[in-house]
Amino acid sequence: MTKPPLTPLAESLPATVPFVGPEATERKMGKTFAARLGANENLFGPSPKALKAMEDANAEIWKYPDPESHDLRRAIARHLQVAADEVVVGEGIDTLLGYLVRLYVEPGTSVVTSDGAYPTFNYHVTGYGGTLTKVPYKDDMEDPEALLKAASDTNARLIYLSNPDNPMGTHHDYGVIDDMIADLNPECLLILDEAYVEFIDDDTVPEIDTTNPNVIRMRTFSKAYGMAGARVGYAFGHRDIVQAFEKVRNHFGMNRTAQIGALAALQDQKHLARSLKDVAAARDTISKIAQGNGLTPIPSSTNFVTINCGADADFAIAVLEELGARGIFVRKPFAAPGDRCIRVTCGPPDELDLFRAALPDALKAAKSR
Amino acid sequence: MTKPPLTPLAESLPATVPFVGPEATERKMGKTFAARLGANENLFGPSPKALKAMEDANAEIWKYPDPESHDLRRAIARHLQVAADEVVVGEGIDTLLGYLVRLYVEPGTSVVTSDGAYPTFNYHVTGYGGTLTKVPYKDDMEDPEALLKAASDTNARLIYLSNPDNPMGTHHDYGVIDDMIADLNPECLLILDEAYVEFIDDDTVPEIDTTNPNVIRMRTFSKAYGMAGARVGYAFGHRDIVQAFEKVRNHFGMNRTAQIGALAALQDQKHLARSLKDVAAARDTISKIAQGNGLTPIPSSTNFVTINCGADADFAIAVLEELGARGIFVRKPFAAPGDRCIRVTCGPPDELDLFRAALPDALKAAKSR
Repeated sequence: MTKPPLTPLAESLPATVPFVGPEATERKMGKTFAARLGANENLFGPSPKALKAMEDANAEIWKYPDPESHDLRRAIARHLQVAADEVVVGEGIDTLLGYLVRLYVEPGTSVVTSDGAYPTFNYHVTGYGGTLTKVPYKDDMEDPEALLKAASDTNARLIYLSNPDNPMGTHHDYGVIDDMIADLNPECLLILDEAYVEFIDDDTVPEIDTTNPNVIRMRTFSKAYGMAGARVGYAFGHRDIVQAFEKVRNHFGMNRTAQIGALAALQDQKHLARSLKDVAAARDTISKIAQGNGLTPIPSSTNFVTINCGADADFAIAVLEELGARGIFVRKPFAAPGDRCIRVTCGPPDELDLFRAALPDALKAAKSR
Repeated sequence: MTKPPLTPLAESLPATVPFVGPEATERKMGKTFAARLGANENLFGPSPKALKAMEDANAEIWKYPDPESHDLRRAIARHLQVAADEVVVGEGIDTLLGYLVRLYVEPGTSVVTSDGAYPTFNYHVTGYGGTLTKVPYKDDMEDPEALLKAASDTNARLIYLSNPDNPMGTHHDYGVIDDMIADLNPECLLILDEAYVEFIDDDTVPEIDTTNPNVIRMRTFSKAYGMAGARVGYAFGHRDIVQAFEKVRNHFGMNRTAQIGALAALQDQKHLARSLKDVAAARDTISKIAQGNGLTPIPSSTNFVTINCGADADFAIAVLEELGARGIFVRKPFAAPGDRCIRVTCGPPDELDLFRAALPDALKAAKSR
């Protein structure tokens, strides 16, 4: 049958999803997870003020969103102490990564990332025909030197670095990142994915310098602010980069209630501080549960703990599956050497109690496979 | 200063927004509009059941959305009597149009639309390097024959047709559309934008035929369902086309609360019927106001009335501006010959009373310019 052909690039792409959602697994299992500890969501939820703002905004859901996200964008700019035109708001970091890749990558463009880092970024790069070079993690951390070398070797246009890192949960202090930025090829742009940045001390975070045209940073309301379902992320950096988003972004893509909720969440820094404390306590609990079962938690700079299961990837997969069978949703790093680990999201004591209860049996079952 | 260069295509694009939002105008004026009658929103709002569902869902905003929009997609499929894999849900029709253009358009690909039709579609086509051919409206309607001829002349991959049409508010019965579909080149895909389809009688709508690989149809919760701020649209058609969206779409782009609200809205067809009656009454009111002021309303198949101001585009712009100065937000068609008109969205009696009160003075002021 003759039919309208896709572009050759689109034809070459697989129909794929970077992550399977827990809902899909639940539908397959025929039951819901008792503890949802796999997606690095913030189970402590958003600010009650954000919830109230969203509730109030519901009645005006008939209105289109402000395509400029004016109020939210200004509030973020004030929060970061940058200019409003140095910030762009989008439907989560995923969307902003997609726009950025579209702006800089065409078939054959070289892009560098870490092997096992964010699959959605890779999905976008492949989707625009880019050529990915992946460098291994080193000591369970992303390896700035190796990233720089690979970028130099391949004349890369983009380097992706998440700091703090997902899926390992580690981070580099500002000195390491600043050195990396100083060594960038002038035609290479560093994407600093800071989705988890609120979980580390401010004084370890690289200073913001929007005069540098070689860095774009991205943050989100999905993690510390507890609003993953709202889809609100932002990018900031040199205004020339930020303005380029106006060439391609879907101006009316933001949910209006989410814009309003994110603004209220940002304005409630007291709640954020409380949530960070809750997360820190949960991190300790998860680490202790791991240790109590003979496993090794990797010190975490995020809202999850990556746990070295002490054997190979097959064993870690078995642990994950056995936890799943016991109602505990966790995920794990995809690539070696991180793939010997499972990754457990912070949550309230009730959920962690379920994890604590399930882990010994899950480990026993995984070992006896 | 050396900096990371954009792709040549991205470099060539203007930083632009297809529509300026009313909020931007309000910020410029330093006051809000008294009547928001310009964006073809549904001022009667969504189903109370949808509002309740969204309110209930707020508490789980910390969860990521289901990337498959499983429940909503199945409900839409049932509603349309098609299979679930013949439907894709996205962040409004705008986003889905962007994906579709990305799948089918590369630099130089020919695309046909009507001059003055949806600017956001054109934005996407230009954004992927496509070459637009625009054909004029005929008798204030899109012109299927001219669209087909232009597509044939330019070997077009895509034709865009909105039916009912925005910005003129007219529509073609199924016979005209079916004839157009029958005459499509086998390698040409017709995008049938049915954002306003709920406002016309079911028996004038072309039958759904998902076996035809030359048609993709798009609908939304922004108009009749009154949820423009939620950003929920869907496309349906041959499963090969629908599955191709999986190659490029942002799987986690949907707001979770919006997914849940749209499902509840779809399930409340009684509310939809009431809303359609309210809209029909408002259409009559707007038409009478226009006639009472010596203007000619174009019979509408949508939730807005396009009003022929009886002179040239400059006069229509003057009327629009004078209405704006009096607190009434309306829009107008951009291209000739529709640009002699203004476009007024349906709304409750209070808002229409404000329009009724402002129009005579606005016309007088426009005439005396």
